[in-house]
Amino acid sequence: MDEFSFIRSVQPAYYKQSSLIKGISDDAAVIRPSGGDVVTAVDTMVEDVHFSRKTMQPHHIGHRVLAANLSDLAAMGSTPAYYMVSITIPSDWSEEELIELYAGMDDLAARYRMDLIGGDTVSGRELSVTVTVMGTVAKGKARYRSAAVPGDVLFVTGTLGDSRGGLEWLLNEKNDSSSDQAFLIDRHRKPWPRVSFAEGLSTLQRVALNDVSDGIANEANEIAESSGVDIHIAKDMVPFSSALKNTFPDQYQDWMLSGGEDFELLGAVPLSDWTLVQENAETAGIKITKIGEVDEVSGDSPRVFIKESDQIAILKKSGYTHLKGKG
Amino acid sequence: MDEFSFIRSVQPAYYKQSSLIKGISDDAAVIRPSGGDVVTAVDTMVEDVHFSRKTMQPHHIGHRVLAANLSDLAAMGSTPAYYMVSITIPSDWSEEELIELYAGMDDLAARYRMDLIGGDTVSGRELSVTVTVMGTVAKGKARYRSAAVPGDVLFVTGTLGDSRGGLEWLLNEKNDSSSDQAFLIDRHRKPWPRVSFAEGLSTLQRVALNDVSDGIANEANEIAESSGVDIHIAKDMVPFSSALKNTFPDQYQDWMLSGGEDFELLGAVPLSDWTLVQENAETAGIKITKIGEVDEVSGDSPRVFIKESDQIAILKKSGYTHLKGKG
Repeated sequence: MDEFSFIRSVQPAYYKQSSLIKGISDDAAVIRPSGGDVVTAVDTMVEDVHFSRKTMQPHHIGHRVLAANLSDLAAMGSTPAYYMVSITIPSDWSEEELIELYAGMDDLAARYRMDLIGGDTVSGRELSVTVTVMGTVAKGKARYRSAAVPGDVLFVTGTLGDSRGGLEWLLNEKNDSSSDQAFLIDRHRKPWPRVSFAEGLSTLQRVALNDVSDGIANEANEIAESSGVDIHIAKDMVPFSSALKNTFPDQYQDWMLSGGEDFELLGAVPLSDWTLVQENAETAGIKITKIGEVDEVSGDSPRVFIKESDQIAILKKSGYTHLKGKG
Repeated sequence: MDEFSFIRSVQPAYYKQSSLIKGISDDAAVIRPSGGDVVTAVDTMVEDVHFSRKTMQPHHIGHRVLAANLSDLAAMGSTPAYYMVSITIPSDWSEEELIELYAGMDDLAARYRMDLIGGDTVSGRELSVTVTVMGTVAKGKARYRSAAVPGDVLFVTGTLGDSRGGLEWLLNEKNDSSSDQAFLIDRHRKPWPRVSFAEGLSTLQRVALNDVSDGIANEANEIAESSGVDIHIAKDMVPFSSALKNTFPDQYQDWMLSGGEDFELLGAVPLSDWTLVQENAETAGIKITKIGEVDEVSGDSPRVFIKESDQIAILKKSGYTHLKGKG
């Protein structure tokens, strides 16, 4: 493949962001921030580590790697603006597949009027896509996982574990005729980052947000540690889809706690703002569920507790639980 | 390797840039730009494509991948501020080697008070390092390759072809006892981006800059095309080191035109500013050489001409030349 003509084929015909001074065509891109703070993150996905062509089309892969980055921006309360793509291309990928992969990113980016402003194209033995995103947020309004305070409501968007369910279904090459399985597969291949919902929280004085990329067992522990608080989760309040429960009745409870890459948001807000947060989720057209509370640290260090029936256990990052007080 | 403990080991103990609001510890980094424009670029280097552990220590690899990015910022006239590192780690790299690679970046970054503010760590079959850099430049002062104007002096920093010479020497596993060869090896392993020199040009009204990553044959054509001008290079004015000529008497002339990755700067300025540019190079402690002039387009499209003795040839991007007028 001619690298130069490929780059030209994925280069935007025009740019949408008014703060862009120089896009692709020089040694670097130039942006003129309009007074807010700039938020940036980077994510890499490698073939046969993070995705496989057996379970995803190139379009899905493009969508998913950008979605993972947008989920990071959403978790900061940031509005997406720009992205750059560095791609390592092995010889067994065709130009058509690569163009599809970029189209997957472009379709998602277009929803947010994001511009592709740079990148790199190199050859290698395995396909690897690194996306850098940049967004904006009003001064001092970035949302940190360290912002939770005792008394807060703990909430999560969407349903949990679906992506893991979709992946398992695809890996086992089962028949995907039912609507339940089609739903799970779609959740795995095309996760939708909760950007609009997070932007809608901008009027709130304080909200802690963390994106659910490794499962809420992990993310709840991150909020607890960063904020210096205990977190109490009620297991029977954690949201799962009927599709997941129907398809994987034996695993759905584990996956809703530790299944990765749902790209939902886990957050904590003062009880007085909980109604506003619910209204905002309704406006954004997404489900939101209260799953617990934030409390003061009761032991030597912050912990996450999970209550099921009348038993309380400690929820570790891995999703592993053990009964309270047993060490 | 425990990914979490590795990330902690390369995480900065403190940050230097006053515009940083949030470094590594949340879903993304947050920056508060202080009024200027923001410049950003990304570069990927893959083991056995862009470098080899046969010819470079991990420390050199780290230095070189960040240097390549800093050279892009220099070519925009930008002051470096931040970087993010996304690394794909195969099983045959040890934690010690990885820490050395990060130290190579960190040592170079420290010269410019740059902060490491984010990244990603994933596993894969081949080592790959993607660096995203961010810098600042005064509003409207970014330097474009499209800014050359007929009548300008064409100049280049440093000497050309050394990096290629160093690589060839290392690949052929020759004895490196002489100081000439040590010089070439050092130019290959530890190129120094021309950041201070480029910053020093900030008082100039206009200067076109392009970093020499693929050889001046390529970069001169990029300036010619972007600016819509012809460029005339005098071959006997193109700077090379005596080390290169002594070591590779048969190849040095080709390599000074098309040997890549010297990370010098090729530029064009009005004749009236040429003295200032020379003084600035002296202040920055680097060599600078006038190698030609910028002229109006004489044919159907912009071209680069190279004059040797009394013959004038057309210099293609590849470094290939053919006599003027013969097609």
